Amino acid sequence: MPFTVPVADQARLLEHVVGIEGLAQHERFAHADPETVEAVLEGAASFAEGEFLPLHRIGDEVGAKLEDGVVTMPPGYREAYRAFVDAGWMTLSAPTDFGGQAMPLALSAALMENLNATNIGFALCPMLSLGAVEALEAHGSDELKARYLDKIVSGEWPATMNLTEPQAGSDVGALTSKAEPAGDGSWRISGQKIYITYGEHDLADNIIHLVLARTPGAPEGTRGISLFLVPKILPDGSRNDLVCTGLEEKLGIHASPTCVMRYGENGGATGWMVGPENGGMRAMFTMMNNARLNVGLQGVGLAERATQEAVAYALDRTQGMRGGRPTAIAEHPDVRRMLMRMRALTMGARALCYYAFGCIDKGETGDTEAALRAEVLIPMAKAWSTDVGVEVASLGIQVHGGMGYIEETGAAQHLRDARIAPIYEGTNGIQAADLVGRKLGLDGGLAFDGLIADVHADTQDERLMALADVIEQTATMLREAAPDHKLAGSYPFLDMCSVMVAAWLLEKVAIATDDPRTKAASEYFLSVLVPEALGKGAAASAGAEILYSVPAETLA
Amino acid sequence: MPFTVPVADQARLLEHVVGIEGLAQHERFAHADPETVEAVLEGAASFAEGEFLPLHRIGDEVGAKLEDGVVTMPPGYREAYRAFVDAGWMTLSAPTDFGGQAMPLALSAALMENLNATNIGFALCPMLSLGAVEALEAHGSDELKARYLDKIVSGEWPATMNLTEPQAGSDVGALTSKAEPAGDGSWRISGQKIYITYGEHDLADNIIHLVLARTPGAPEGTRGISLFLVPKILPDGSRNDLVCTGLEEKLGIHASPTCVMRYGENGGATGWMVGPENGGMRAMFTMMNNARLNVGLQGVGLAERATQEAVAYALDRTQGMRGGRPTAIAEHPDVRRMLMRMRALTMGARALCYYAFGCIDKGETGDTEAALRAEVLIPMAKAWSTDVGVEVASLGIQVHGGMGYIEETGAAQHLRDARIAPIYEGTNGIQAADLVGRKLGLDGGLAFDGLIADVHADTQDERLMALADVIEQTATMLREAAPDHKLAGSYPFLDMCSVMVAAWLLEKVAIATDDPRTKAASEYFLSVLVPEALGKGAAASAGAEILYSVPAETLA
Repeated sequence: MPFTVPVADQARLLEHVVGIEGLAQHERFAHADPETVEAVLEGAASFAEGEFLPLHRIGDEVGAKLEDGVVTMPPGYREAYRAFVDAGWMTLSAPTDFGGQAMPLALSAALMENLNATNIGFALCPMLSLGAVEALEAHGSDELKARYLDKIVSGEWPATMNLTEPQAGSDVGALTSKAEPAGDGSWRISGQKIYITYGEHDLADNIIHLVLARTPGAPEGTRGISLFLVPKILPDGSRNDLVCTGLEEKLGIHASPTCVMRYGENGGATGWMVGPENGGMRAMFTMMNNARLNVGLQGVGLAERATQEAVAYALDRTQGMRGGRPTAIAEHPDVRRMLMRMRALTMGARALCYYAFGCIDKGETGDTEAALRAEVLIPMAKAWSTDVGVEVASLGIQVHGGMGYIEETGAAQHLRDARIAPIYEGTNGIQAADLVGRKLGLDGGLAFDGLIADVHADTQDERLMALADVIEQTATMLREAAPDHKLAGSYPFLDMCSVMVAAWLLEKVAIATDDPRTKAASEYFLSVLVPEALGKGAAASAGAEILYSVPAETLA
Repeated sequence: MPFTVPVADQARLLEHVVGIEGLAQHERFAHADPETVEAVLEGAASFAEGEFLPLHRIGDEVGAKLEDGVVTMPPGYREAYRAFVDAGWMTLSAPTDFGGQAMPLALSAALMENLNATNIGFALCPMLSLGAVEALEAHGSDELKARYLDKIVSGEWPATMNLTEPQAGSDVGALTSKAEPAGDGSWRISGQKIYITYGEHDLADNIIHLVLARTPGAPEGTRGISLFLVPKILPDGSRNDLVCTGLEEKLGIHASPTCVMRYGENGGATGWMVGPENGGMRAMFTMMNNARLNVGLQGVGLAERATQEAVAYALDRTQGMRGGRPTAIAEHPDVRRMLMRMRALTMGARALCYYAFGCIDKGETGDTEAALRAEVLIPMAKAWSTDVGVEVASLGIQVHGGMGYIEETGAAQHLRDARIAPIYEGTNGIQAADLVGRKLGLDGGLAFDGLIADVHADTQDERLMALADVIEQTATMLREAAPDHKLAGSYPFLDMCSVMVAAWLLEKVAIATDDPRTKAASEYFLSVLVPEALGKGAAASAGAEILYSVPAETLA
């Protein structure tokens, strides 16, 4: 199916939601002038359409293969990855000191969205490297940076994140991988890690693993975790003591090798500590914050792709009559309802994610309020956008009818691919817990309250005001509530907040631009999605009693 | 994963929602005495757990295979199907004249739910035969019945439904398969049919196809369609002129062969007309009404399965702490929220489906009001229960975290399997159109209004009353509305009505039985799902303008 990156939508958001021209007034982003931004948007679209899109199906059908510890990517992936590196796409938002272009993350978001839309399984490789760049830049020693950072920035050596162990998933603090000092400043790492995305592959000559492990005598839990850089190939050219022992058979993202990794089976893999001892969680959060937003963009990208394909199919497929003539199914009201819902949700999720990235960028220019706003938005952008990705992909199947259930059509793959995003980089439940647990109280509550105040100040719509009012009341209640009550309401609360922000942003863009489809999406939000979100208010404030009225065993 | 049929829940619904003891007061169901009902429930549970469940994974992994027109089922399926036939399970609700046991459909529903829960891909084979039995019994000639009905009733010769053609899906009237009179009372059928479930397989010696086709000079559209019985093997033992030319590669239900069928490539397949010429649509609706409810039971069965597995996993998997101790994730509020939601939705969908079957059974005893009630309930039971199946299966993946995305765990298969049910037997959009287009006006509107009145009369809950009020007002509005407005609101309207009925039934059972988990599910409906449904009221009455504010092309 053809796919066209919605460059005009992206540009509209950068202008009216991110305020990229304002960012370019600052020294930090002075090079993000309008001409450059336009060129990057056009170039990122062409690259994704030309290089990543054609490899999408083969990635699903052939997938990554493991034999004797060697992971082989599907045909064409090596060449396309090379093209990606050579064109400098990996360097877009990276720091200039290490060969990066230091562009705003909000602009990089457009690139990542495109890669996700055209080939999510492939896009995971650069996505993980982005997180590693940030962690290493913020916490790595000068020596480590000098040795590794420019190679990761360029994409020459892709990087990975090694957190999860069989007993330590959402509970990262339960991990048991070990690091012993080698005496020469390096460490010997040993342990098993699972679900390591791109833990092994043949796209590059080296792979740089960032691994969480415990040093001798480290405290229990998250306070005793340190971060290590563990390269596949050591500086002397020898192979490090690490190996991929298995690939998971997954529902989707087959192009992406999900590896079981074993470190130190022969005495210990050599690694170097990143940041201070027992400071691994902080370094990890540096990686994860932006990674979470990038996962949100997976939802956006897949939703865009599924929407375009569903509309194209519905315009082409004739069934039944309207006004006495055979008609395309896109004209039938309930099909149109699905298409409109898909389009509106996609645009809303994109607006939310770009806005969050834009707030991080503003924070980089010294705007601390914007930096705090980003913190509040991140769990919404990750969780809601990935839920949107699943819903829109599922609607895409429905629009295709029986054809949607046949793999050949491609609609089913989007659902299979989309379904991982609510799980990894912190499950959506973890995001909701973060919103009510940390973000609601950030800056004494001002960070969250400022968001509500902005919505109230801007919107001209009574339905959206009503939603903002309910959210405000619920927030007050949740702040006072016992932890279980807070958590019991966290998921519906996150949903409501996300819809509020998306509706607010789309309304702003619709008013500013008069763009027909933004207006249509905005009106759909206000008429349908905002009232729907209001319906979740009861669950957000219902408390935990109804969940614990019977023992969990009784639910089996 | 272990799976236990929830016999106690099934029995509770048969007693308090279906009123099976009342049914047994009637001559027609006199044999459905409490002891027999109990024995059937227990037997149906053991059979499904013992014979269908063990073949579930192999059905997905190996699937049905086509070679040279011959479809081979996975190992074990022939023997299990034989066991199913030998035990007489196929005959449960069939008419006694042809070897059936004439049990209430509501009891047969428990059996079908179990087969769906344990092996949906396998269960489709008997399900389709059930529809054929009804069509043939209601519309077939005595001669045809004598020749075929007892074999289909016993399961000896499974049957199929051949409606869809490449250009004729939801628009059945666009089909072009032909039937020419052979001069001896039989017909020569020719044409291509697609998406024919169990169109070919090796479970039995013969397969009885029910095929829609057009006779010479038939009017266009649905008024010119006739139904034909076309056996794979003719009465003289020769092979009929029909062949399976392809199997679809599907997202799920891999055990079920989805066939491309070609009729009459060598002069015409021999068939016999069922019912009057051009009366095919009526005969088809006979098949489809109950088939729709059986598809609703696929949603119920898969939801039950996914719920049990998620609860078991969440009780077993330890992550994080509660009260200073490591805890099973089932104790974390947001996980408990998912488990409770899964359990409540599953019980609600089961109650709705069993109730609909029970109304058909009551109709059989001469209760015309119940028969009309069933008509109103059928689109809800089909559409909402299958949406529940998808939602619960997706939540099941989420509860499993990263494990849920790995195929080995089995959670992902449930989502893949569940995703077909909102599509076939009339898409859920078609069901919603049926609800607002036909069912809302049935019996001058009394059929629908009676349902609302019953909810109002029974419930003691203000939230449910509020929902019933909004539905009543919306119904009044939709009845007066132009067709496009009606259809634009049809899907959210169906959702609201379904939640109302499910909440009403669960509340009744909770009050009557004091069963702890029914009470918990009922409270969850009233506290969370009913308010959520209220949030859809705006969309139900918003009209079509917001959907058509831009051309469909603008949504691409």
